[in-house]
Amino acid sequence: MFFASDNAGPAHPQVMQALMDANQGYAMPYGSDPIMNDVRARLREIFEAPEAAVYLVATGTAANSLALATLGQPWQTVFCSPVAHIHEDECNAPEFYSGGAKLTLVGDSDKITAEALRGAILAEETRGVHGPQRGPVSITNVTERGRVYTCAEIAALSAIAKEHGLPVHLDGARFANALVALGCTAAEMTWKAGVDAVSFGGTKNGLPGVEAVIFFDPAKAWEFELRRKRGAHLFSKHRYLSAQMLAFLTDNLWLHSAKRANANAARLTDGLKAMPTASFLHEPQANMVFANLPRASHKRLHEAGAAYYIWSGSLEGDDPSEPLAARLVCDWSIGHDQIDQFLKIAAG
Amino acid sequence: MFFASDNAGPAHPQVMQALMDANQGYAMPYGSDPIMNDVRARLREIFEAPEAAVYLVATGTAANSLALATLGQPWQTVFCSPVAHIHEDECNAPEFYSGGAKLTLVGDSDKITAEALRGAILAEETRGVHGPQRGPVSITNVTERGRVYTCAEIAALSAIAKEHGLPVHLDGARFANALVALGCTAAEMTWKAGVDAVSFGGTKNGLPGVEAVIFFDPAKAWEFELRRKRGAHLFSKHRYLSAQMLAFLTDNLWLHSAKRANANAARLTDGLKAMPTASFLHEPQANMVFANLPRASHKRLHEAGAAYYIWSGSLEGDDPSEPLAARLVCDWSIGHDQIDQFLKIAAG
Amino acid sequence: MFFASDNAGPAHPQVMQALMDANQGYAMPYGSDPIMNDVRARLREIFEAPEAAVYLVATGTAANSLALATLGQPWQTVFCSPVAHIHEDECNAPEFYSGGAKLTLVGDSDKITAEALRGAILAEETRGVHGPQRGPVSITNVTERGRVYTCAEIAALSAIAKEHGLPVHLDGARFANALVALGCTAAEMTWKAGVDAVSFGGTKNGLPGVEAVIFFDPAKAWEFELRRKRGAHLFSKHRYLSAQMLAFLTDNLWLHSAKRANANAARLTDGLKAMPTASFLHEPQANMVFANLPRASHKRLHEAGAAYYIWSGSLEGDDPSEPLAARLVCDWSIGHDQIDQFLKIAAG
Amino acid sequence: MFFASDNAGPAHPQVMQALMDANQGYAMPYGSDPIMNDVRARLREIFEAPEAAVYLVATGTAANSLALATLGQPWQTVFCSPVAHIHEDECNAPEFYSGGAKLTLVGDSDKITAEALRGAILAEETRGVHGPQRGPVSITNVTERGRVYTCAEIAALSAIAKEHGLPVHLDGARFANALVALGCTAAEMTWKAGVDAVSFGGTKNGLPGVEAVIFFDPAKAWEFELRRKRGAHLFSKHRYLSAQMLAFLTDNLWLHSAKRANANAARLTDGLKAMPTASFLHEPQANMVFANLPRASHKRLHEAGAAYYIWSGSLEGDDPSEPLAARLVCDWSIGHDQIDQFLKIAAG
Repeated sequence: MFFASDNAGPAHPQVMQALMDANQGYAMPYGSDPIMNDVRARLREIFEAPEAAVYLVATGTAANSLALATLGQPWQTVFCSPVAHIHEDECNAPEFYSGGAKLTLVGDSDKITAEALRGAILAEETRGVHGPQRGPVSITNVTERGRVYTCAEIAALSAIAKEHGLPVHLDGARFANALVALGCTAAEMTWKAGVDAVSFGGTKNGLPGVEAVIFFDPAKAWEFELRRKRGAHLFSKHRYLSAQMLAFLTDNLWLHSAKRANANAARLTDGLKAMPTASFLHEPQANMVFANLPRASHKRLHEAGAAYYIWSGSLEGDDPSEPLAARLVCDWSIGHDQIDQFLKIAAG
Repeated sequence: MFFASDNAGPAHPQVMQALMDANQGYAMPYGSDPIMNDVRARLREIFEAPEAAVYLVATGTAANSLALATLGQPWQTVFCSPVAHIHEDECNAPEFYSGGAKLTLVGDSDKITAEALRGAILAEETRGVHGPQRGPVSITNVTERGRVYTCAEIAALSAIAKEHGLPVHLDGARFANALVALGCTAAEMTWKAGVDAVSFGGTKNGLPGVEAVIFFDPAKAWEFELRRKRGAHLFSKHRYLSAQMLAFLTDNLWLHSAKRANANAARLTDGLKAMPTASFLHEPQANMVFANLPRASHKRLHEAGAAYYIWSGSLEGDDPSEPLAARLVCDWSIGHDQIDQFLKIAAG
Repeated sequence: MFFASDNAGPAHPQVMQALMDANQGYAMPYGSDPIMNDVRARLREIFEAPEAAVYLVATGTAANSLALATLGQPWQTVFCSPVAHIHEDECNAPEFYSGGAKLTLVGDSDKITAEALRGAILAEETRGVHGPQRGPVSITNVTERGRVYTCAEIAALSAIAKEHGLPVHLDGARFANALVALGCTAAEMTWKAGVDAVSFGGTKNGLPGVEAVIFFDPAKAWEFELRRKRGAHLFSKHRYLSAQMLAFLTDNLWLHSAKRANANAARLTDGLKAMPTASFLHEPQANMVFANLPRASHKRLHEAGAAYYIWSGSLEGDDPSEPLAARLVCDWSIGHDQIDQFLKIAAG
Repeated sequence: MFFASDNAGPAHPQVMQALMDANQGYAMPYGSDPIMNDVRARLREIFEAPEAAVYLVATGTAANSLALATLGQPWQTVFCSPVAHIHEDECNAPEFYSGGAKLTLVGDSDKITAEALRGAILAEETRGVHGPQRGPVSITNVTERGRVYTCAEIAALSAIAKEHGLPVHLDGARFANALVALGCTAAEMTWKAGVDAVSFGGTKNGLPGVEAVIFFDPAKAWEFELRRKRGAHLFSKHRYLSAQMLAFLTDNLWLHSAKRANANAARLTDGLKAMPTASFLHEPQANMVFANLPRASHKRLHEAGAAYYIWSGSLEGDDPSEPLAARLVCDWSIGHDQIDQFLKIAAG
């Protein structure tokens, strides 16, 4: 019953097999392996972006930080949600990679609204050389709270950014989960909605550790390559990154895995909806469920070994009926039996 | 006939099998996987350093840059060879990670001599706040030119560093190749010789991509962890790094692989010594051979598809007997047949 | 009628005379001038801190950024008010000098409350290596909105910082204005209240351009010197900084000037209080007045050439009685005639 | 008898008077003071560069570091002499401001030769993303050893830089001394010789502390302004910088002062040439003399209180006739009596 994160489950067997298959003979290092050619071609095809610059790195933080550093300048501020991974969970990596840029927290929610973004951008307008300059807008889909921006919502935020000449970055650590939730194309969720660069996640969706960074305008491709090398994120034995990503993209494994993860979360959601004592922080949309359960349920689950984060409140407390929020993340690999067992124990 | 680098051959099958074996069920992320406990214990045992802080990263540049940034300060200068990987091949990653430290190039050779080091350190002595401050000494074993520092040589350099209170870093991208060439212990080549931190290489010795960073004094362990995270080098699915390293250390695979690589280079060396037209830039000591061959030999080898770097001179030229230097790197996987074929073609 | 800032008026004649007097013969450069010895001794005396490390720089941003970089680490976050100069008016200098630290905005006011600080610190507590680490607390006295922290308020904030082992920085760009408003000693407002380092302002209080940085614990003095040099803030002809500061400290010129400035603001405040159409954003406490005046008053003042910032709202608008906020800053040099003329025109 | 540096003498009285004169009434801060308009116009006129971007900072290190950071990128290397001030005397400020660029030391002399520059640039050519990328070329005129590049020599270096698309920076801490030594125009020594940006020194030539940074192509002007602010080098009371520089440029004070300094050095040189025991490291060309004197001369001079650097060797030693090198710097203010006294004591 592991619902703590989607970064702790096993990689998909097809991906592991691809790693084994790639382990034959010699391959040119540093991204010149032939598999990378296929990865690049396949991602350009998926994104309907034949000119896009496509790179692989091994962590989501690297993808985000390198993308943002390439899009912005050290004297700028990046507009993001106060719960954005780049703000809360990267130990100042974006500040480090950018050379000291600032992050401006927009609104008070995981989903940035057009109004809040406009307000935040305008608030940086009047201080000339004194204040930070306006920089990239970074949005996360699926958000860190499990919600999904529609393509129209992304387009609305991009439009505001563009009014001010600001580039747009999409943190897609759970890109595929968002895509299958929306039922749109990768192009529709990105460049057709005004996104300039994407961190295209693989690690949370069944890969051992690979993310792609995609720039739809290749003008800064060489700069990105230099930043990646200087950041120590260029792998010599790059084929082991390429092989993961190619297997991910082959036969739509990435979409199938995301569908399974989302379906697992939906099953969990349905079960919780049937529990009168459970409620939701908001309606789950992808593979994360934020739900309130009574303390007694939590205690039973913990005794049974269920792993997940208690999002607010504490197990310690007297009132067994007091609701405590849980973050429950489903990856592609969680079995129905685990979900059902969780629900059964939660219901008591 | 691939002698271009030891970063292009396949990973060892036992390592790949370990990756497959590790791909079961859930594992705590970010270095809290149980395999990492075994890696830590095993490396402490190998290094006879029960208190050592042990971390994994995925690239040698990350290992070096993070280790040096942790040992030094932005206003210092790192003493290294002019052909050090940290100077020539990391696109300013050490400067980036350190926040703007300088590198002082010591002497004019791959091997730093005690005299040159002393001179370089003393030359930084008289400028108060104006010049860069003296910082870590970084040495590479096996050097970038295939030579090996003896433990006594390392100890002599460390002694000079310690006279001035400077920490010592060992870039051990080819640590095992040096160790088996010397026939000493890991402790003797490192902390017993005054080394404070090691980049312990795996990638060039049969791993898909893992290096360990080891600090013998754990005082800066937490700082290193923060630097690693901030540098985006902390893997969520860390078990796939741990599994590589544990397989590497199990049953001395790391030493066996290095012995094979060195033996391959010795076979190549012996064959070249039998060629009257061949000569050596210096006596090969580990898994790299720097040898002069006549242009005609190079032409035949290139036509036959041999892959390696021409280190000086150019294939283009009229004189078929003119000697051109080659860098020939042997990894564990190169077959005797390839070596013998290379020698046969070279001899003509 | 110049109320735009206290950085635009003339320097005090005694300071200018001291510059002339210092311009004799040779003086050792880079802070080794004899005048600096006197400055150091005098500041240690004023602060009752015989061990304090004392340095001069030429801009307030340099003082703040260098002090914070010395107190903190790149992977930390600095706790400050959302209107702090370090956040709003230094174009990411603190982020640059710290090597990429973050700023956490505490509360929604110019004055940080103990409750807000505690909450902000606790909110950074649970993410291990993932979130930014807690770093220095920076408070500004006089605040950017003209209010004054009492010594007890500073002590309360420091106590919370110390509970968590965090150093405390005081941005004292208007240090003297706060001190004379409080009627306490420099020691009481700083180290006796738990402050570790001070940016001691001179520029806004009658100097051409000098600020002192004072560390009460000299342990990091050498690090500061290196950071200052590396930041290009060590003056070769340092005597021209020393001379300004020594004149400032001689015969309590710094306190007299601040008293004059505060008295000027009090005169302005009293005059505005007599205007039924005027109101205050909060009670003025030092040399800055934030007051609402009807649009008609603003229009008359602008036509008469009064210089100040309209803090909210716009001169353009139909309703002559609509209140618009003004920021009115008084320096030591503003004449009573200007204040009275301003009041007369404002009253109409 | 102060020959230690040209940064320790008094400022020119006309400059001090200009500071007094500027200290009247209010002036817009942050470079918007009217005097700065005159400075800008005058420097554009002097440099025959009506479009040039012109800025003031207070230290030479700031001028150099900000200029180089603006011309280059963090993943590049700056080509400079091994004795360049930016390498030896700025405590890694160029590395800090550039975000971690490297400095490549060209040749082994204060004057870079065309051959050495070409060799150094070509040596950085073959490593793709691995090595540092080629960046700005920085030359110093007058050099740190008192020699002067001719305009033709500068043009030759610039031509090589331009072949490779590299910008050229001139560290002109002693710009005027070089100019009067050459008898050319400011334009001829800079943009007509291919220089892109100049650190135009004032501090070593009679100012309390001001340097101009001039970009002949204003394309990066705004970036420079942001870098200056972020580096904490934008002065609020900027008029005190402007006033210094305007006085410097008025009635050619800058040229007159440099002529006096160079003439002082010539007088010293002539006197030393008349001493049979004196010799020169190279023929003095501007305001610095590097000369060998017998130990006995040095001892007499030190006893008499002469201040200068012993450049090689040590006063301690038995042989009174052993030559020790001295660095003797003349500023505009040194009197003939001091020079003659120095010569008399040296001669014994």
